[in-house]
Amino acid sequence: MRPPSLLSLTIASALAHITDIVDLTDIPDFLLIELFLGTLRAGKLTEKVLKVFIATGNPHILSFIESLGIKIALTPILPTLKDDEVDIVITALKPDLGFLEEWRPVFSRFHLIIVKDPDLLDADLKIPPGFPSLDVYNQSDMESLVGKKALSLLQFTGFSARYFGYLVSRRRYIIFIDADCIPVRDDLGHPMDVVNQHLVNLTTPATPFFFNTLYDPYIKGSDFVRGYPFSLRCGVDCAVSCGLWLNTPDCDASVLKSGKRIERIADAVITVPKGTMFALSGVNVAFNRELIGPALFSGLVLAGEGKVRHKTMEDIWCGMCVKTVCDHLGYGVKSGAPYVQRCVDGATEQESPECTMVAANLLEVAVPFFQSIRLPRTAISTEACMLEIVKLVREKLGHADSSFARAADSMEEWVGVWRSLHAKL
Amino acid sequence: MRPPSLLSLTIASALAHITDIVDLTDIPDFLLIELFLGTLRAGKLTEKVLKVFIATGNPHILSFIESLGIKIALTPILPTLKDDEVDIVITALKPDLGFLEEWRPVFSRFHLIIVKDPDLLDADLKIPPGFPSLDVYNQSDMESLVGKKALSLLQFTGFSARYFGYLVSRRRYIIFIDADCIPVRDDLGHPMDVVNQHLVNLTTPATPFFFNTLYDPYIKGSDFVRGYPFSLRCGVDCAVSCGLWLNTPDCDASVLKSGKRIERIADAVITVPKGTMFALSGVNVAFNRELIGPALFSGLVLAGEGKVRHKTMEDIWCGMCVKTVCDHLGYGVKSGAPYVQRCVDGATEQESPECTMVAANLLEVAVPFFQSIRLPRTAISTEACMLEIVKLVREKLGHADSSFARAADSMEEWVGVWRSLHAKL
Repeated sequence: MRPPSLLSLTIASALAHITDIVDLTDIPDFLLIELFLGTLRAGKLTEKVLKVFIATGNPHILSFIESLGIKIALTPILPTLKDDEVDIVITALKPDLGFLEEWRPVFSRFHLIIVKDPDLLDADLKIPPGFPSLDVYNQSDMESLVGKKALSLLQFTGFSARYFGYLVSRRRYIIFIDADCIPVRDDLGHPMDVVNQHLVNLTTPATPFFFNTLYDPYIKGSDFVRGYPFSLRCGVDCAVSCGLWLNTPDCDASVLKSGKRIERIADAVITVPKGTMFALSGVNVAFNRELIGPALFSGLVLAGEGKVRHKTMEDIWCGMCVKTVCDHLGYGVKSGAPYVQRCVDGATEQESPECTMVAANLLEVAVPFFQSIRLPRTAISTEACMLEIVKLVREKLGHADSSFARAADSMEEWVGVWRSLHAKL
Repeated sequence: MRPPSLLSLTIASALAHITDIVDLTDIPDFLLIELFLGTLRAGKLTEKVLKVFIATGNPHILSFIESLGIKIALTPILPTLKDDEVDIVITALKPDLGFLEEWRPVFSRFHLIIVKDPDLLDADLKIPPGFPSLDVYNQSDMESLVGKKALSLLQFTGFSARYFGYLVSRRRYIIFIDADCIPVRDDLGHPMDVVNQHLVNLTTPATPFFFNTLYDPYIKGSDFVRGYPFSLRCGVDCAVSCGLWLNTPDCDASVLKSGKRIERIADAVITVPKGTMFALSGVNVAFNRELIGPALFSGLVLAGEGKVRHKTMEDIWCGMCVKTVCDHLGYGVKSGAPYVQRCVDGATEQESPECTMVAANLLEVAVPFFQSIRLPRTAISTEACMLEIVKLVREKLGHADSSFARAADSMEEWVGVWRSLHAKL
């Protein structure tokens, strides 16, 4: 019998204390591989030990782990975003954009896209100073970019003007805030950074397949609860982050009249589960344009709507399209924090039950439609998904109300315009 | 031409001011009906006006509204619960129940069911005074009620002892809190009333068919958001309310070792959407026993588990059974507030990756199973649903691991015991 080699003694000694070792990066490759195999044989490859091996970045170890079919729940490292990966889109429904004063500390280092509602005609926009990177688009820009004919279908007026902002953006992430919102301030009076919080939501995975009772497990202070399947802990890409707001809730006119106010922040972010529909509000929303860009469009605009949030349907329809596309392509939609402070006083606005009734009746048809449709497997891009939705809307909703047929036409045109504009790049 | 009658003039005058009228209860029936028909004809029947008519409680008006197919989103009025409709179930895993001291202001007016873990043998329980209505059950009670043979299958030991408490309860609502939890205290030092908050969750409807971005619309301060379909605003009965806790999260051993703590209350209650699974934790949970009683059982007990929360699978399995039954029968499951304060320090407990791995591997099989099964339409009671799950577990999971087959046997026995005990009443 030969005496034990130095190598085997070293391995045996390391193996005996393997659970105490926190760093293996400086170990020569051949020792590392021996040690890994030894750990496996000894049945000591716990999650903690595995992480230390993975941290070495050794390609042999990594491919070996892969070949063993071991799935690892990685704690995501937030990518260091550059400021030029973000566009902030604002629609000017009134000429005075004084509300941006409040946003200066949060927004000024990012590029702003301000889209002027065509209905403002020649009125000059009043934009506070201090935003070094800013582009303003008006009706003539719309006409020259998409043409008068397409424009008449796309209806970039009122709140829908923002869709033009999405169209001209060239950055990865888009954040949209209504012009009646200002930052929530913390106890020290500092504005809360809505941009950063949206980016945390968008750059960490979403969990649409299983509900986590501690909400978003990737947010600081939370985690996956016991019983959350390990195979689902890697999550999926998050495409949309829907924020909330204090003060006037985004409810129907009758609730607004009741004077109800949202006064407390619920410190939670939730992935809306796969297969579950929700009502997206356009007040405070962010998305990954590269992932899901063209899905953020509506086309469903009712007569007379577009200037008062609680009278619009466009964002609700847009949300159901986006959710359908995300569910199909395997992306996630988060809802919850960050909050903004809404300044509009709903109670002073005229109650319009007729308008609510028209929208409510359309929803009674549209919601079951979106809950039931399944897109074909061949639709593997956002554009293809949108065109499939167009087809299904024409087929199953077109006869129910002419608004649906118009929405389908508008969505089809939108995808065409999006494609041609982005093909040029 | 005849002059207008006094009646017609009265109606016309009331109609002209119908939107200003806030109370019609004192109007004679025939006038009320004339006025209602006139309001309809004049197109003035807004939601607000409708509510005033409904508030009269006039049966002709109500049946007329029903025949018109008008759906109304009623703000639920919390039923005045009697204290004797609530059972608080506590399992004694250790003889000293001193933690109940802290709960006295919250629990003392309710009936307590204390189930002594059979493993405690002859040890005397130390129960603080001040709980006038209290029953203690021990192993001999278990044996005399269900028999030794059934008991060996049902395994009412460790955390599973609570299921015996559910079995002997005769009250509508059951609230269960782990013995390592005390009340969260507000800024003034008052204990937060976990019982009342659970009852609010259980007595207001749940909304499993559409996600409300402002969370539970029935909780004070919230409401349905714009775009939430009116036809779904009546919600469904809520069967289960899963609470949360501060301090040590209910995570896997590895997370507990990291020292992560839950330090803030997220002021939200969410209906887990239909079709979405979640990991129920047994730490702090309440349910409507009359609605869903026998679904709260597990039967999946792993070797050596039962005394340490983060090593148990029973509550996770129980949660997936309950969710499957609720989804099938059209009941809701809520998760979120109320919180309790957990005192256990997970970091001091021994890490047991092997135990975690066994549980994790079982979950990788069990979760897809529960996500995919559909119960037959003929299963219209909780008992029938549980027996269908038993059948499916045997058929599809029995071969994967013997724990599943044992769980099926145990669940079948449980339903039998539940039926025979409740048939006697």
